[in-house]
Amino acid sequence: MAWVSESRLAAAVSNAGGAGIIGSGGRSVEWVQDEIRAAKTLTTKPFGVNIVMLDRLKDEIVELVCAEKVAFVTMGAGNPLPYIAKLQQAGIKVLPVVPSVKLAKRVENAGADAVVIEGMECGGHIGTLTTMALLSNVIPEVSIPVVAAGGIVDGRGMAAALLMGADGVQLGSRFLLATECALHANAKQRIIHAVDTDSVVTGYSRNHGVRGLRNQFADKFLAMEKSGVPDEELNNFATGTNRMAAIEGDVDDGFVLVGQSLSRLNEIMPADAIIKGIMAETIERLNAAPNLTK
Amino acid sequence: MAWVSESRLAAAVSNAGGAGIIGSGGRSVEWVQDEIRAAKTLTTKPFGVNIVMLDRLKDEIVELVCAEKVAFVTMGAGNPLPYIAKLQQAGIKVLPVVPSVKLAKRVENAGADAVVIEGMECGGHIGTLTTMALLSNVIPEVSIPVVAAGGIVDGRGMAAALLMGADGVQLGSRFLLATECALHANAKQRIIHAVDTDSVVTGYSRNHGVRGLRNQFADKFLAMEKSGVPDEELNNFATGTNRMAAIEGDVDDGFVLVGQSLSRLNEIMPADAIIKGIMAETIERLNAAPNLTK
Repeated sequence: MAWVSESRLAAAVSNAGGAGIIGSGGRSVEWVQDEIRAAKTLTTKPFGVNIVMLDRLKDEIVELVCAEKVAFVTMGAGNPLPYIAKLQQAGIKVLPVVPSVKLAKRVENAGADAVVIEGMECGGHIGTLTTMALLSNVIPEVSIPVVAAGGIVDGRGMAAALLMGADGVQLGSRFLLATECALHANAKQRIIHAVDTDSVVTGYSRNHGVRGLRNQFADKFLAMEKSGVPDEELNNFATGTNRMAAIEGDVDDGFVLVGQSLSRLNEIMPADAIIKGIMAETIERLNAAPNLTK
Repeated sequence: MAWVSESRLAAAVSNAGGAGIIGSGGRSVEWVQDEIRAAKTLTTKPFGVNIVMLDRLKDEIVELVCAEKVAFVTMGAGNPLPYIAKLQQAGIKVLPVVPSVKLAKRVENAGADAVVIEGMECGGHIGTLTTMALLSNVIPEVSIPVVAAGGIVDGRGMAAALLMGADGVQLGSRFLLATECALHANAKQRIIHAVDTDSVVTGYSRNHGVRGLRNQFADKFLAMEKSGVPDEELNNFATGTNRMAAIEGDVDDGFVLVGQSLSRLNEIMPADAIIKGIMAETIERLNAAPNLTK
């Protein structure tokens, strides 16, 4: 959700009973500070900040969130261990995003408050394990709460994750179509018209998978990847393409980052309506579950 | 389950209340006939045959299963449409394995009795969509029964799939560790000792993904793939490596095909015990689901 999850979306999600998150990846410290303060004017509910552990400003952003005392932090794409104690001392809950059982146990032992397991059906930077595999593998091995992500777009997916033992879910792609999401209208339209098989992963064979919609950019990248060009050339070609699609609206040469459950992403609506709909469906499914045994 | 799902395993699964399947991929027509007849001596319950639509003997095997009148057929890796009517006229239920909403609708319109949606967390030849994405995308779009597969290894996964609207589940990897499974003991031990991150996909960047365990073979293949060697060279290098691991027990130069939920695959036990355990856990989870709304 880099570039597209700002104070407006985060506050709307929190006001609706969710836990909104400001995406700090690629942003300046000043921008993150402004957005945290803006969110505080828009909601009195808890919200969080996502910090990308590969970001060159990660130390400064950790300092900032400690000073601003946001409710929680999610941390992916790198090693969160050096930051857990510092954040917690500032009263911040820490939820690392983990790609495996081993790393889930490691952050649990380091005192993390919960873990986010994010299946490779999610949009953007992905790992290798899927949501079903992570739910199957990780949940029996940890005792801290688990938040499931990846491919979940409705109350059916949320109910399924809870039934497998998750304590909550994180949805990104569904909120790309929130009225309050800063994603460019061109990219929102591409997502609305996309179907399941329009999802592609660039860089998978280079251990650097990024999921988005098949288009001119992705086709060219995949042909280069297959032809064996060096990683550096691929990285240069991809740099800036997320922002190009998300902010500038160039959905041909930019890369629209979104997950795989595309056939269900059809409508722009307010975050409040998204969350109310998902919660109602989740409760309905869970309450009706015993009927499935008959 | 090519090479490893024979009459003994299929009959044991059917006797335990499941729907056992003989894997015909790569086998001779005589072998498949012998196994169907052997299964009939081992069980009076319905069982099926999987037919690989890329197999050069597929026409002959369709003829055979019509003559032998097995209960059902699953069909993957190619176009099942030309065979649906013929099989049904012989009284056989037809369950194509489909990789997308579009193909699910197409086989539904062609009269298929049900569809199998198989997420790319499964072992062996994989598509691109995951189990969570397929459950999310496909179920609302079709009215015939849906069988979910990929990464499901226990009653938690089965309960989750049913809650999302699936009518049944298909498990492959879990039955690799069935006492009755023909998989070589060396490969079974590798699976038992493998953890989630030991799963790799060869050929993903060539649109020909095959999932198995990281080993000497897989590392070499992935390095060749990354370096841009032609598809044909990769295919030649991989040919026979499934059989090499599964039957000959060479788990270094052969490829052990298994799905991603590896941390839960720890014990060899009879198919009957596997199924009883999964069913008990599924029913327990579904009955307890309303508690999750409180």
